[in-house]
Amino acid sequence: MSQPLKYAVFGSGSWATAIVKMLCENLEEVGWYMRSVYTKEHILREQHNPNYLSSVEFHLEQLKLSNDINEIANYADVLIFVIPSAFIHSELKKLNADITDKIVVSAVKGIIPETGLLVGEHFHDNYNIPFENIGVIAGPCHAEEVALERLSYLTISCADQKKAQIIANALSSDYIKTKTSDDVIGTEYAVMLKNIYAIAAGIAHGLGYGDNFQSVLMSNAIREMKRFIKKMHKMKRNINNSAYLGDLLVTGYSTFSRNRMFGNMIGKGYTVKSAQMEMNMVAEGYYATKSAHLLNDKNKKKTKLPIINAVYDILYEGKDPKKVFKKLTDKLN
Amino acid sequence: MSQPLKYAVFGSGSWATAIVKMLCENLEEVGWYMRSVYTKEHILREQHNPNYLSSVEFHLEQLKLSNDINEIANYADVLIFVIPSAFIHSELKKLNADITDKIVVSAVKGIIPETGLLVGEHFHDNYNIPFENIGVIAGPCHAEEVALERLSYLTISCADQKKAQIIANALSSDYIKTKTSDDVIGTEYAVMLKNIYAIAAGIAHGLGYGDNFQSVLMSNAIREMKRFIKKMHKMKRNINNSAYLGDLLVTGYSTFSRNRMFGNMIGKGYTVKSAQMEMNMVAEGYYATKSAHLLNDKNKKKTKLPIINAVYDILYEGKDPKKVFKKLTDKLN
Repeated sequence: MSQPLKYAVFGSGSWATAIVKMLCENLEEVGWYMRSVYTKEHILREQHNPNYLSSVEFHLEQLKLSNDINEIANYADVLIFVIPSAFIHSELKKLNADITDKIVVSAVKGIIPETGLLVGEHFHDNYNIPFENIGVIAGPCHAEEVALERLSYLTISCADQKKAQIIANALSSDYIKTKTSDDVIGTEYAVMLKNIYAIAAGIAHGLGYGDNFQSVLMSNAIREMKRFIKKMHKMKRNINNSAYLGDLLVTGYSTFSRNRMFGNMIGKGYTVKSAQMEMNMVAEGYYATKSAHLLNDKNKKKTKLPIINAVYDILYEGKDPKKVFKKLTDKLN
Repeated sequence: MSQPLKYAVFGSGSWATAIVKMLCENLEEVGWYMRSVYTKEHILREQHNPNYLSSVEFHLEQLKLSNDINEIANYADVLIFVIPSAFIHSELKKLNADITDKIVVSAVKGIIPETGLLVGEHFHDNYNIPFENIGVIAGPCHAEEVALERLSYLTISCADQKKAQIIANALSSDYIKTKTSDDVIGTEYAVMLKNIYAIAAGIAHGLGYGDNFQSVLMSNAIREMKRFIKKMHKMKRNINNSAYLGDLLVTGYSTFSRNRMFGNMIGKGYTVKSAQMEMNMVAEGYYATKSAHLLNDKNKKKTKLPIINAVYDILYEGKDPKKVFKKLTDKLN
């Protein structure tokens, strides 16, 4: 690694756009794959993403844009995937470049619904990427605040701490502080679970529960997250570190979170279908809820997941949010 | 304890008023001491507190009101003190009734500035109350939501778990769920510390830090709180229980918190004096900051308290909030 590493981002949503911006603070060139020809053309013409963080202006000489996933995969050494979990399976079907020697980093906020695998596991199983070359970028970080250059903290996880530090350095700047962690699996699950709890917070708000209840919900959520992750991957971790608790809080307390907004509509009486149509998108936490529920179901010794189960019953079993939350309030403390 | 216990509340602020309301759901009569003759007369005439939670209507036949602290202390078996920590020392000077056999419960959100003692310790040292007769009521609970009968959870701590349960039962209702704990000292410190962190959250907001930073601040705050309490009283506790983390969150994330508001004004450039004059009151966290700082200073082996120290430097050393927080951001992670 004497040559400086080349980085590329895959995806064109708000979080992908924010990560490209962070990298552009440090690197001469950043590869950027996006599916949409229109988005690419717009960036080339107007120097900003038409749909997300459009206030962020890019210098075109720093961007290597392409609609060809293999071109960008061949170009870079560090591949950062920031595609919604619902689309990653179909997007990756196009990927046939040899990426065995690359470092693969997930900034996907969920697990792959079709397989129930974490993004890292998917690359390990399907592309023979060794685990020491797999990383995760975790928040707490709203992309919108990166656009405004407001101070934010990221945690970069990788089994190989040197690689974690190299990636962290590429992302650090005046307004981005980074730390590293070796808990790849734990941080990846945390990123996924927080979206379920944000849906729960939204449902509670929609049903008329107040701030006192929300704080009890969040305090139970972090304990539930700790139990869940411990069951999936036992290792020493402080669940109150920013990558776990901080990320839960920034999502659960944000009125801008799409997951919270989705939950809020459900709590107010929208059906799942109509809430999704109204929002014109599917919130990540919707898939995460099913995946988390299935993962726990597969385990012989189940963990108590009252909040996740409540959200599952509402979203997938068609149960009445009001009744489900009434029961849930007896299980929290 | 075959006779039903008589309860009394000392204080007439919003939290005192909320606790009287909770007790009135269960008890035929509640003693209520308040200093102000005007407030007492107003309640007798209008059935509500003129200054706090004035939407809450009381049934006068349930209230035994008095401006005489000794009359109410003699009347009740369970004495619940809900007086701001800054005034409790002077109020208690009037107390000369024999309360040795009473159960004393603190719902004071701080420690006594003049002595640096927890309210429980004060009653133990000065009134010979044995520790098994000393309790604490902890949130997370905004009084305003009690007035609206929104579901809230309380933790009642007492070394004697039976007594904790008896008090919990007197407070429980359709909208109040309770749990008990034996961590009297830990919950009392938590109630005090959260107000300091709420001031920190306010300062950060006033300085222009965003939601990403707030979540990092809160995630560091709960770790700092854990260290502080562990140093003061080592025992097994889950710092993520509602009485610690939940209470921190409801205060730190509330835009209505007077401590957060006070911090916000400091962050926006008000001096401590002018912020206090503008608010027409002194936020609990202001005294708590000094007490926490002194308590840590007295310890030979100091605990790392970067957030409390930052707030102390701003409030008591006249340091520039912007510079202090810039330095603080390097200590958080």
